[in-house]
Amino acid sequence: MPLWKVYHPVGAYTREDKHALSKKITEIYSEVPLPKFYVVVVFQEVPQDSFYVGGESVGNFVRIHMDHIARQMTSEAQKTKFFARTEVAIAPFIRDRGFDWELHIDETPFDLWTVKGIRPPRAGTEDEKRWISENRPSPRTHD
Amino acid sequence: MPLWKVYHPVGAYTREDKHALSKKITEIYSEVPLPKFYVVVVFQEVPQDSFYVGGESVGNFVRIHMDHIARQMTSEAQKTKFFARTEVAIAPFIRDRGFDWELHIDETPFDLWTVKGIRPPRAGTEDEKRWISENRPSPRTHD
Amino acid sequence: MPLWKVYHPVGAYTREDKHALSKKITEIYSEVPLPKFYVVVVFQEVPQDSFYVGGESVGNFVRIHMDHIARQMTSEAQKTKFFARTEVAIAPFIRDRGFDWELHIDETPFDLWTVKGIRPPRAGTEDEKRWISENRPSPRTHD
Repeated sequence: MPLWKVYHPVGAYTREDKHALSKKITEIYSEVPLPKFYVVVVFQEVPQDSFYVGGESVGNFVRIHMDHIARQMTSEAQKTKFFARTEVAIAPFIRDRGFDWELHIDETPFDLWTVKGIRPPRAGTEDEKRWISENRPSPRTHD
Repeated sequence: MPLWKVYHPVGAYTREDKHALSKKITEIYSEVPLPKFYVVVVFQEVPQDSFYVGGESVGNFVRIHMDHIARQMTSEAQKTKFFARTEVAIAPFIRDRGFDWELHIDETPFDLWTVKGIRPPRAGTEDEKRWISENRPSPRTHD
Repeated sequence: MPLWKVYHPVGAYTREDKHALSKKITEIYSEVPLPKFYVVVVFQEVPQDSFYVGGESVGNFVRIHMDHIARQMTSEAQKTKFFARTEVAIAPFIRDRGFDWELHIDETPFDLWTVKGIRPPRAGTEDEKRWISENRPSPRTHD
């Protein structure tokens, strides 16, 4: 958590672009704070003849699908802040390069998630603080 | 919204097939009515040695995963109609070619979705009507 | 249902590995019992320069995304058992090969799912028993 899947045109991004964008995405979550290693990004090239918007093939479109697990956004203020933060992070790689884009988030059940076989610690626990500071999973000590 | 991911055998579809199917899919939603540009389809080839049903590799199977965001289906009548409409749209590309298939829909939160940085208009608003008629996003004027 | 998407390093698995792992995954669900053909697994190679954890590219990481449709897990005992069963099934292909891993499940609406154009039978019905014993879909006889 989060899992970002970034569907993008073939050749849109260099290795350096993807590294830089994944760092920007990670910062959004590490500021919550959440462990950095929670942030997984999968970049996937989609050939123009396999990518359609409104029934027409597209070569300048980026579609981002996020799954959020560790936290749910319950207030409008949280959502507004998250989207503002996200748009700033991704703009240099999408809007500023002339791509169109769309993104959506699904929130999936906290209790149906494991990292390296371990059920992650609940929000705000000492276990979560340790996962953040050590940036790696370790046995959970609370129920 | 919707986002359709179509997992299919390598070489199952030509560029023309994919274009035609994406148009059929778009019609399902434009009849709601919804803006045509909401409809995103990603075709993804899956090699036979990476695609398994019931523990056996498959070369004649299409798996469709849809995310719905703009509308939720609340009545059985809506669901029945949607599936009937969908099966007709996809049959020439799947059933009539001898492929097996499975599809499912997830409904994800309306408030966790943006298009080109804009939170899309709510159902039935003047903003949504404008998005439909212009077939592009523009600033939302309601809360 | 379930749909497993397994994102893994390029070349991590042979055809035999993927076949064997998909059989192990299928057993988890056939023990419920559920029809074996419900279990769909898509393996997807992700090049190291397209796969990021915590802002760093990874070449030894497996990320599994599952969608569950036919059953929801409502008790902690069910979840604990499922994860224990799953970890045993995947360990020879992930942990024992030195890969890190993360997995999560989304539960999506039963009523928004079809197999070969048929709405699958509800849990425990005679129809479901027939689907299990015949290992193929056939017309549903209940509402």
